[in-house]
Amino acid sequence: MTRPREQREFFAVRTVGEALAGFRPERRTSSERVSLAEALGRVPADAVTAPQALPGFARATVDGFAVRAADTYGVSDGQPGYLDLAGEARMGRPPDSELLPGAAIAIATGAPLPPGADAVVKVEHTQSTLPGLIEVVRPATPGEGMVRPDEDAAAGAELARPGRPLRAADLGMLAAAGVTEALVRARPRVAIVSTGDELVPSRTAELETGQVRDATAPALAALVREAGGEPSFAGIVPDERDALEATLRRALAGGEAAGVGAHDLASEPAPGGCDLLVVSAGSSVGARDETASAIASLGEPGVWCHGLALRPGKPTLLAECGGVPVIGLPGNPRSALVVFRLVGMPLVRLVGGCTDPPPEPSVRARLGRDLPSAAGRLDVVQVALEDGIATPLFGSSALLSILARADGHLIVPEAATGLSAGSEVEVTLYR
Amino acid sequence: MTRPREQREFFAVRTVGEALAGFRPERRTSSERVSLAEALGRVPADAVTAPQALPGFARATVDGFAVRAADTYGVSDGQPGYLDLAGEARMGRPPDSELLPGAAIAIATGAPLPPGADAVVKVEHTQSTLPGLIEVVRPATPGEGMVRPDEDAAAGAELARPGRPLRAADLGMLAAAGVTEALVRARPRVAIVSTGDELVPSRTAELETGQVRDATAPALAALVREAGGEPSFAGIVPDERDALEATLRRALAGGEAAGVGAHDLASEPAPGGCDLLVVSAGSSVGARDETASAIASLGEPGVWCHGLALRPGKPTLLAECGGVPVIGLPGNPRSALVVFRLVGMPLVRLVGGCTDPPPEPSVRARLGRDLPSAAGRLDVVQVALEDGIATPLFGSSALLSILARADGHLIVPEAATGLSAGSEVEVTLYR
Repeated sequence: MTRPREQREFFAVRTVGEALAGFRPERRTSSERVSLAEALGRVPADAVTAPQALPGFARATVDGFAVRAADTYGVSDGQPGYLDLAGEARMGRPPDSELLPGAAIAIATGAPLPPGADAVVKVEHTQSTLPGLIEVVRPATPGEGMVRPDEDAAAGAELARPGRPLRAADLGMLAAAGVTEALVRARPRVAIVSTGDELVPSRTAELETGQVRDATAPALAALVREAGGEPSFAGIVPDERDALEATLRRALAGGEAAGVGAHDLASEPAPGGCDLLVVSAGSSVGARDETASAIASLGEPGVWCHGLALRPGKPTLLAECGGVPVIGLPGNPRSALVVFRLVGMPLVRLVGGCTDPPPEPSVRARLGRDLPSAAGRLDVVQVALEDGIATPLFGSSALLSILARADGHLIVPEAATGLSAGSEVEVTLYR
Repeated sequence: MTRPREQREFFAVRTVGEALAGFRPERRTSSERVSLAEALGRVPADAVTAPQALPGFARATVDGFAVRAADTYGVSDGQPGYLDLAGEARMGRPPDSELLPGAAIAIATGAPLPPGADAVVKVEHTQSTLPGLIEVVRPATPGEGMVRPDEDAAAGAELARPGRPLRAADLGMLAAAGVTEALVRARPRVAIVSTGDELVPSRTAELETGQVRDATAPALAALVREAGGEPSFAGIVPDERDALEATLRRALAGGEAAGVGAHDLASEPAPGGCDLLVVSAGSSVGARDETASAIASLGEPGVWCHGLALRPGKPTLLAECGGVPVIGLPGNPRSALVVFRLVGMPLVRLVGGCTDPPPEPSVRARLGRDLPSAAGRLDVVQVALEDGIATPLFGSSALLSILARADGHLIVPEAATGLSAGSEVEVTLYR
């Protein structure tokens, strides 16, 4: 408790909106090539365009007969047209020859139209009464029963957008175009440092009174993965200024993790440093001050904000140190996870070049009880959902179980002083 | 075209609802142990319960002084109470001794309360004017400023529910309880067979006229992954009854994939067979008949339905052959992906023991134009979304680009004969 309370608590507090709009570190991950089998959800580094038109040839979309549409004009059930049956289009093979006026060839869905043909008459609109002839009883318009050679994609058309994670259909389009690898942003390497004299690795079988297993780091790692990042655990350090600074510097620089518990729940180590550093701070005010001081010493330009107008989650620190964004999270597991979802996951996406994140599931519901809230602060309220009713789950932010029991959260914006029971609310759902 | 058209087309057509409710193969994957670092999104095979209570000890949630609440009753700013300052609780260590009546000890957020203490007075509600004494100016109620030893979880409480994919907060709870591995369902192994004389592997650089790269299989593989399955490519086979049956039998039994393109976009091979077999059928009616006949020969009880009241996607086949569910998909890529999203992904989840799937993102929007629909058939309409307006994207179901351009789809139910422009619709969003 080195600074007076007022100065510490009200030092550069920002709203969540200000943090999202204003804290925009320039760091971006490099790009790498991955096969389509590994590309789902990855973020294209550049636009991917079609090397050639797709499907590349005029293709039947019905089973029937390829014709010159003009040869069918005016036909009807009462006055059928007659065309010479001049063979069959073979699936997957180039057409044998041009379709002559007055002729038709049998064609199955997916087969290439012969040159000269500009429509496919459905088999249902024909009859075959005489050998070598077909009767057409419905006129075809040009383009009917087929797709044009460039109807799925023109040569040069954009098949994948930079910044938008690749979806199933995108992978299909890339495969159709013969693009078997994609140039994507590398997953942001996110180093997670846990601090707290009470923390022990989660593999610790027996606890002494006062000890607590590190629950925040594995949950944060899962959120990092959901945002497209690659988490690594840089260890558990006690609330000591020098030990903390040393661990943070090591995590920034890369190399062996050294804190207690670094090999617990081990993910890939991050030997080349990290793209984002997450510090899950100690829970006491004193421990938070040690963390803030250690982060501030890591490099320029340093601390961007120290405090968010957010509950839970006020004691959040955002900094950029030597080109690496740093997030200092509150010590309570639930607060840490709320802040990371609101501010940390967008930062992981930013660094990973994801400008067009996937939609989040949400649902409208009725609030089950009155919800008080202080103006000027954004409240994140965990809720259980049943039959369209969102019931707020209250309890200390030290309780992670509140989050585990929640189906999602609702947000009471800064301007509101609370919500009445029965109000319609938008609940962001957890997956 | 061996059977008359009427018999083929109207053979055991079911609604999508009937298929989801009625086609419930019994196959389930076995279970396996995974570390917490690999457990995100995995499906617990059994309930996971807390071995001990959490946090396991009474813990401060504020910085202040641990007290016996009764010692503070009646105090106020004007009439403070005085307590002997009897030391400090150390973070992460067992308490030194019991708190005696009339005493208080300094405690930081997260530290264990000493025996005898039943509340923590916030530092803001105290003053320290005389050495060795604290003044308390606000009464504490029992349980204030602390969490009980079993407040996060009672011993034996359920930490993870069987059938619901593990979320970030669940992993936190498991870690807190010292559960570092979870018993989860193995990912369903989904073998994908592509059929069609025109199909070539997507790595094919130059196409002959009439050839088409296999776009459906990689897109299906992505949807399999999204549903928690592990896809494998069992090859591309021509539309020949015997070759098809042989490939399907090999995919069911496991072993080396033999079709053309089996090693393209290769994922893990499935040497032990598969838990679900997906056949992306040839596009012509004749090819579909060959596929149906080959599937029907694979084993008992055989075909469950041959046709869904669905557009696109009518020529869908559902079967169970020798204990393995089999889905025969329409030949058009877009139809195949629509059917797989509606019927295939739920089957992957069923086989993988996922009874409580994660919520899907969706949004309400206004329909941008009239949408005709035939009664008795469920229509899946791809839409682009902008400013709350859902604009239907039309075009042949041979065009995969329609799906790639869509932000999501809306469903026109069987009973409706269309929707008017301006109607409010629910759009399921793609991620």
